[in-house]
Amino acid sequence: MIDFQNYLYDKIPISHAMGVKVELLSKEEVILSAEYAKNLNHKCTVFGGSLHSLATLSCWSLLHHQFEASGTEIVIAQSHIDYLRPVCSDFQARVTRPEEKIWKRFLEVLKEKGKAKIELQAEIFQGEKLAVTFQGTFAALSTQR
Amino acid sequence: MIDFQNYLYDKIPISHAMGVKVELLSKEEVILSAEYAKNLNHKCTVFGGSLHSLATLSCWSLLHHQFEASGTEIVIAQSHIDYLRPVCSDFQARVTRPEEKIWKRFLEVLKEKGKAKIELQAEIFQGEKLAVTFQGTFAALSTQR
Repeated sequence: MIDFQNYLYDKIPISHAMGVKVELLSKEEVILSAEYAKNLNHKCTVFGGSLHSLATLSCWSLLHHQFEASGTEIVIAQSHIDYLRPVCSDFQARVTRPEEKIWKRFLEVLKEKGKAKIELQAEIFQGEKLAVTFQGTFAALSTQR
Repeated sequence: MIDFQNYLYDKIPISHAMGVKVELLSKEEVILSAEYAKNLNHKCTVFGGSLHSLATLSCWSLLHHQFEASGTEIVIAQSHIDYLRPVCSDFQARVTRPEEKIWKRFLEVLKEKGKAKIELQAEIFQGEKLAVTFQGTFAALSTQR
């Protein structure tokens, strides 16, 4: 996980400025955290843009970790975010792989056509309190065809 | 504008890490820019989270600039973003005040109820090329009732 954290800091430098930490990285789930103090706004709650960034980064990390070895590129196409409550401490973004049926279909389309889209859902928690819901549509593109 | 830029750096420190500059600040329009090099991703295009952050910041700045003197708080409730093309240079977020009819209604509701919501639309440009469209719903809350 520390290797991937250093990869993020090196390749996506704003992740370092946000104090992002990789808490869990597997093919089924990713949990990232970020530091309250580095993401403050004028009201001393966490800036909405930072919440969106951490959610985006968690989804991208999940897909990147699946496809890193195969040379498949992952790009975000669109996203929607709902801010349910202000965040006043360090915070975590959590994302899990979609259900098996959707995931298999995505892999099939990617194999057949060399590109496919998938929607991921991430959530941001302050402790155990849900603060943000995020849906992002990501495009995967094979580079080895 | 430089005062407001310093205010952003002081109160929302991630704006400093992003290299945000205030290009235009008026009650009708806000233009913010950010530095390519500070917002890179692994593909050497601009990280999607940074594009969202600049769009959010531009909309918030427009509303903050309207209401600063009256003590009205501005909070983001939700947003949607479409990434139309990758950004490979410094970039600008532009937002203008909604049409007069919508704006007047928003002010009326805010005056009557002490709170009101409004949707703003921002766009991100790389040079003159439109790269991102953003819609954000913001809540305004009077603190002096």
